[in-house]
Amino acid sequence: MRTLPAENSTMELQQLDLDTAPGRAERAKWLLSSPNPPSPWHELTSSIRETVLPKEREKQPRTKGHILFLQGLFPILKWGRSYNGAKFKKDLMAGLTLASLCIPQSIGYANLAKLEPQYGLYTSVVPPLIYALMGSSREIAIGPVAVVSLLLSAMIQKVVDPSVDPVAYTSLVFTVTFFTGAFQAVFGIFRLGFLVDFLSHAAIVGFMGGAAIVIGLQQLKGLLGISNFTTKTDVVSVMEAVLKALHHSWYPLNFVLGCSFLIFILITRFVGTRNKKLFWLPAMAPLFSVILSTLIVYLTKADKHGIKIVKHFKGGINPSSVHQLKFGGPHVGEAAKFGLICALIALTEAIAVGRSFASIKGYQLDGNKEMVAMGFMNIVGSLTSCYAATGSFSRTAVNFSAGCETVVSNIVMAITVLVSLLLFTRLLYYTPFAILASIILSALPGLIDLNGAYNIWKVDKLDFIVCLSAFFGVLFGSVEIGLLIAVAISFAKIIVVSIKPSTQVLGRLPGTDTFCDILQYPVAAQIPGILIVSISSGTLCFANATFIKERILRRVFDENETQENTKGGVRVLVLDMSNVMNIDTSGIRSLEELHKKMISRGTELAMASPRWQVINKLKTAKFVDKIGAGWVYFNIPDAVDYCLRFKINVLDNC
Amino acid sequence: MRTLPAENSTMELQQLDLDTAPGRAERAKWLLSSPNPPSPWHELTSSIRETVLPKEREKQPRTKGHILFLQGLFPILKWGRSYNGAKFKKDLMAGLTLASLCIPQSIGYANLAKLEPQYGLYTSVVPPLIYALMGSSREIAIGPVAVVSLLLSAMIQKVVDPSVDPVAYTSLVFTVTFFTGAFQAVFGIFRLGFLVDFLSHAAIVGFMGGAAIVIGLQQLKGLLGISNFTTKTDVVSVMEAVLKALHHSWYPLNFVLGCSFLIFILITRFVGTRNKKLFWLPAMAPLFSVILSTLIVYLTKADKHGIKIVKHFKGGINPSSVHQLKFGGPHVGEAAKFGLICALIALTEAIAVGRSFASIKGYQLDGNKEMVAMGFMNIVGSLTSCYAATGSFSRTAVNFSAGCETVVSNIVMAITVLVSLLLFTRLLYYTPFAILASIILSALPGLIDLNGAYNIWKVDKLDFIVCLSAFFGVLFGSVEIGLLIAVAISFAKIIVVSIKPSTQVLGRLPGTDTFCDILQYPVAAQIPGILIVSISSGTLCFANATFIKERILRRVFDENETQENTKGGVRVLVLDMSNVMNIDTSGIRSLEELHKKMISRGTELAMASPRWQVINKLKTAKFVDKIGAGWVYFNIPDAVDYCLRFKINVLDNC
Repeated sequence: MRTLPAENSTMELQQLDLDTAPGRAERAKWLLSSPNPPSPWHELTSSIRETVLPKEREKQPRTKGHILFLQGLFPILKWGRSYNGAKFKKDLMAGLTLASLCIPQSIGYANLAKLEPQYGLYTSVVPPLIYALMGSSREIAIGPVAVVSLLLSAMIQKVVDPSVDPVAYTSLVFTVTFFTGAFQAVFGIFRLGFLVDFLSHAAIVGFMGGAAIVIGLQQLKGLLGISNFTTKTDVVSVMEAVLKALHHSWYPLNFVLGCSFLIFILITRFVGTRNKKLFWLPAMAPLFSVILSTLIVYLTKADKHGIKIVKHFKGGINPSSVHQLKFGGPHVGEAAKFGLICALIALTEAIAVGRSFASIKGYQLDGNKEMVAMGFMNIVGSLTSCYAATGSFSRTAVNFSAGCETVVSNIVMAITVLVSLLLFTRLLYYTPFAILASIILSALPGLIDLNGAYNIWKVDKLDFIVCLSAFFGVLFGSVEIGLLIAVAISFAKIIVVSIKPSTQVLGRLPGTDTFCDILQYPVAAQIPGILIVSISSGTLCFANATFIKERILRRVFDENETQENTKGGVRVLVLDMSNVMNIDTSGIRSLEELHKKMISRGTELAMASPRWQVINKLKTAKFVDKIGAGWVYFNIPDAVDYCLRFKINVLDNC
Repeated sequence: MRTLPAENSTMELQQLDLDTAPGRAERAKWLLSSPNPPSPWHELTSSIRETVLPKEREKQPRTKGHILFLQGLFPILKWGRSYNGAKFKKDLMAGLTLASLCIPQSIGYANLAKLEPQYGLYTSVVPPLIYALMGSSREIAIGPVAVVSLLLSAMIQKVVDPSVDPVAYTSLVFTVTFFTGAFQAVFGIFRLGFLVDFLSHAAIVGFMGGAAIVIGLQQLKGLLGISNFTTKTDVVSVMEAVLKALHHSWYPLNFVLGCSFLIFILITRFVGTRNKKLFWLPAMAPLFSVILSTLIVYLTKADKHGIKIVKHFKGGINPSSVHQLKFGGPHVGEAAKFGLICALIALTEAIAVGRSFASIKGYQLDGNKEMVAMGFMNIVGSLTSCYAATGSFSRTAVNFSAGCETVVSNIVMAITVLVSLLLFTRLLYYTPFAILASIILSALPGLIDLNGAYNIWKVDKLDFIVCLSAFFGVLFGSVEIGLLIAVAISFAKIIVVSIKPSTQVLGRLPGTDTFCDILQYPVAAQIPGILIVSISSGTLCFANATFIKERILRRVFDENETQENTKGGVRVLVLDMSNVMNIDTSGIRSLEELHKKMISRGTELAMASPRWQVINKLKTAKFVDKIGAGWVYFNIPDAVDYCLRFKINVLDNC
C-alpha cells in the first residue's frame, strides 16, 4: 500500500492528471526536463571575464577604445575639456580653505606616524597631484589621515624603533607605502574591489571608534609634554605610561595651551555647524591656532619653561626617496604585510568617503578605477618622501562645503602646501606639540559613529558583537588584532549560518494556494497528514547536511507526536527546496538517508520546487529515480494537491 | 509623477485594493505586522539546549531518568536482558572468525604504526571490551585500523624517531591515544558530533584513497625486506628510498613469499565474494597464511637467507601504561594536536562504518553516544598499552557476514586474542614481515572508492577538486596536509558561494500566477517594464552586498538596453527576497544605495516576499519607511499585479 505510489508514481500521476489537474504534469515535465545549467567551468570563465573586462570596453571599436581607455585611466582628459574659469574660481577658494586645514593636520599626523613634520606636508603635495590626474571623485581631499598614520607607526615601530634608528624607520615607512600603493593598484587592475567589502560596516564602525580613542590617547604625550612615552598603542600601556609620567615629569603649561586652543577650535566648529555660511571658520581655526600659538611661544620664550616645540623642520620641495626603498632587507616580508593592511584600511576609508559624497552629487564612482588611482599616487608618493595617503573624511567635508567643483581644488591645495614648504617652514620652529595634539583631537569625534553603533545594535545583535570586538580589539590589543578579530568573526558568522541553517514548517494561507512559514504568518494553517518543511540554506552541503537531516527528522517526530491522536501522523513529508541553490555529494547522501528513514516509518518523501543546479544534480545522482519522478513537484501547491488526493486514496483503502 | 506612488503609496494601495484586489492589502498587512522573530539570544540558548540535552531525557521522571541515563551510557544493560543462547551461538562463531582475521591484521597494523607487534594485539583486547559495554552498534568490529596506524606513525615520528628512541616513541603514542580518547569523549558529551561532518564525503573518499596508496607504499619495506627505509610518507620520498634500496640491499625471497601469499589471500577473497557461504574463507586466509609462512620459515631456516622475521614478541596480558603517559613533557602540545586529528579521523571512519551497517539492519545510531563510547575505550586503552582503536571497515564486514547478533562477538574476539597473547606469541617468532605486508596490502582495495570518486565527478566538479586535493595532498605532502587542504577547500567553497551568489531574472509561467527563473524554465516570459530579480543567497551581508548590488544594477542596465527601443525600459525593479534568510547592516546599506540609484534613474524599487528576520530588520532600520510600505509585497504576483496597474496609470498620464 505504501510503496504503491512510489513505484507506480509516474503512471498514477498521469492518471490523476487526466482526471482533474491538466497543468501539474506539464509543470513537472518543465521541471524535470529543464535545460542543463551552465557548467562550473563556464560559470568560472564568465565570472572572470565579467570581473576582468569592464563592460564598456567590450563594445567599442579599437581606435576609439584607446581614447576611452586613456580617458578611463586619466579622467582629467574627459572633464578637463569642459573646465572653465567659473569652476576654477570655486576650486581656488576650496583649495585655499583646504590648504589652511591641511597644513596643521599634516604636521600633526606626521607626528602621529612618528615621522619628522615635513613628511606630512610632502604627503599633501605629490599624492593629491597624482590623484587629480587619475581619480574620478570630485570632492575627495587626498593627504595623510589619522587612522593610517596611527596604523603605520603602530605596526612599524614594532620592527624598528623610531627613537633609536629614525633613518631605518623612515626608510621602512616608505617601503611600506610603496607596498601599499602596489597592492592598491593590483586590486584595482585585477578588479578585486570586493576585497574591501570584507571589512563589514559594523567592523569599520567599531574599528574607527577604537582607532579614534587610541589616537586621542596618543595625543596625551603632546598635550602633557611627556618625554618618555610608550611605543605600544593599547589603552593599558598608554595609561600606565601617562600615570608614570604624571608622577615624574610633565609640564602643565603644555596642557593649558593645548586645551585652550582645543576649546577654541571646538567652538569655531560649533559655530560653523550652526551657520553654514561660516564653514570656513572651523577650517581656518587650526591654522590660526598654529600661527597664534607659535607667536605666543616665540614671544614669551615658553619653550624654556617646558613647552615642547617642533624645532627641526626641513623645508624645500619633496626630495627623492628612491634610494630609501629597501626590497632586500630582513623586514621586506613584514613591510609587504603592513602594506597589505594599510592598503585595505586606506581604500576602505577612501572609497567610503568618495562614494558618500558622490552619491550626494548624484554620480557614480568606479571602485576599481579609484583603487588604481590611489595605488599609483602612493607608489609615486613612496618615491618622493611621502607616506601612505588616502581620502580624508574631515577635509573632504570641508572641500565639499567650500564648494569645490573638481579635483582642481586638490591641485590648488598641493601647490599652496608646496609654497609653504618652500617659504614658511622656518617660521614653524616654535610651534608647540600641544597645538598639533589639540588639532588632531578636534578631528577625532568625526571618527566615532555612536549613532551608527546604536543602529547596528538595533538591527543586528551579532553585527554589534563584530563592532564591539573590533572596538575593544583595537583598544586593548592592537590595531591589527582589532581588524583580525572583526574579520574573523564576520567570516565565522557566514560559516555558522551555513552550518546551522534553520528549517521552517510551512502552512497554507487561508483562501489561497500560497504556503508560508507558520511562525511568521500565524494565520497560515498546516494540512493534516502533510508536513511541509522548508530548508533555509543556500547550499545543502557536507557542513550542514547531517544537521538539516536531523532537524527534519526531529520535526517529523514532533509532528507525529502532536498529530498522533488525531489523524494518524505524518503521511507525506514535503521538502520545500526553493531556497537551496546548490547541493553537493554529502547533501545528496543525506537526502538519500532521509528518504530511507521516511520510507522505513511509512512516510512518503516529496520534493517541491528544486532549483536548477539542484534538480540537475539530483537527476545525475539518480536520486530522482530513487524517490520516483512522481514525487518531485514544480511547487508546493502541486505537491500538496497531489498528496491530498493520494492520501484520500489511502484512507479509502484502509 | 515618479515620486507620487512612493509617497502616497499606502493611500493609493488602499484605493486600488478597494477597487479590485481585496486580498492583497490584507496579505501585505500580514507581512508587515508579523510577530517579532525570536531574538538571537533566544535562538542561541534554544540551540544550546537542543544540542546539550537529548530529547528523551527531558520528559522522564527523575528515578526512571537515572535508569534511562545508565542504559543510555551502557546499552548492554538494555539489550543484555533479552540476550539468549541462540544469539550467543551466532556471536561466538562471528567472534572466532573475527579473531582469526584480527590477529594477523593487528600485528601488521602495529608494524605500520612502528610499534612492537604485541601492541596491535593489546589494542584488540581492551578497546573492544569497553566498547561492548558502552557502544550501541551491533556489528562494528573494534581494533587497530590501517589509516589511524599510518596517521599515528606519520605524525609522531616527526617528533620522536622510533628507531632511535623506541621507548619515548611508544610513550608518546599512548599520550596521543589518551588525547584521542579525551577529545572523542568531549565531542560526545558536548554533542559536537557535527564536527565529524566537516570532513565532507568527497574529502573522505580522496583521503582514504590517498592513505591506501601511502599505506601500500609503506608495505614495500616489508615486501622487499629493506632495512633502511625513509620515515616520510609521501610518494616521492618512499620511491626514492625504494630505488636506493633496490641498488644496495634487498632480498627477493621476501618479495616472492609476500606476493605468493598476497595472491592466495586475493583468490580466497574472490571465491568468498562469489560464494557468500564461503565468507569465512577470506576471513581465515590471513591467519592461515601467517601460520603456514611461519612454519615454512621455521623449517627452511629462511631467516638466515634474508627473510625478515618478527623475532621479539612479548606475550602476556596487557601491561599497564599509566606511567608512560606524559602530560608535562615538551611534546604535550603536539600530542594534543595529533590526538585531535586522530580523534576526528577515527570517529569519521567508525561512524561511517557503524551507520552504514545500522541502516542495513534498520536501526539508528546516536553519533554522540558512539563518540562517548569510543572516547572511553581509547582513554582506557591508553592506560593499558593500547594505541588508538576504532571501527574497522573490513572486519566489520566480516563480522556482519559471519552473522553476529550483538557486540558479544567483539567480546569473544577480545578473549580469543587475549588467549593467544597468553599462549601462542612465542610461536610467532618466525613470522615473516612480508606476510604482514601482504595481509595489509590485501585489505587496501576496500579503502579506494573509485566508484564513489566517479560519482562525485559526475555530480559536482568542485567536490571532485576537494576529493583530488585530499588525494594528492596525502600522496605528495603528508597525511595532515591532505586533510588540511581538503577541509580548507571545502570551507573556501562555502565562503565563495556566499560571497558571489547568483541572481536570477524571473518570468511568469504562461497561464499561471507563478514566477520562475527564465533560464531554468524557458517557457517563462518576462513582463515588459518590470524586471524581477531573485537574490540567490541565504544571507545578504557585508561579504556579498556590494556584489549583489552591482549585479542587479548591471541586470537593470542590460534590460534597459534590450527594452529601450520597445517599451521605454524598466519602470519597476522587483526584488524577490524569498531566499534571503538574514541581512546585516551592510546588506541594508546596499539596499538603500540600490534604492537611491533606482530612484535617480526613474525606476521604482519594489520588494517581494521578504522573510521573517529580513522584514523585521528592514522595519527596524526604517528601510521600509524609505521605500514606502506600499512597495513591499507579500509575494511576486501581488507586486506584479500592483505594478502593472501603477504602470498603466503612468502611461495614461504620459
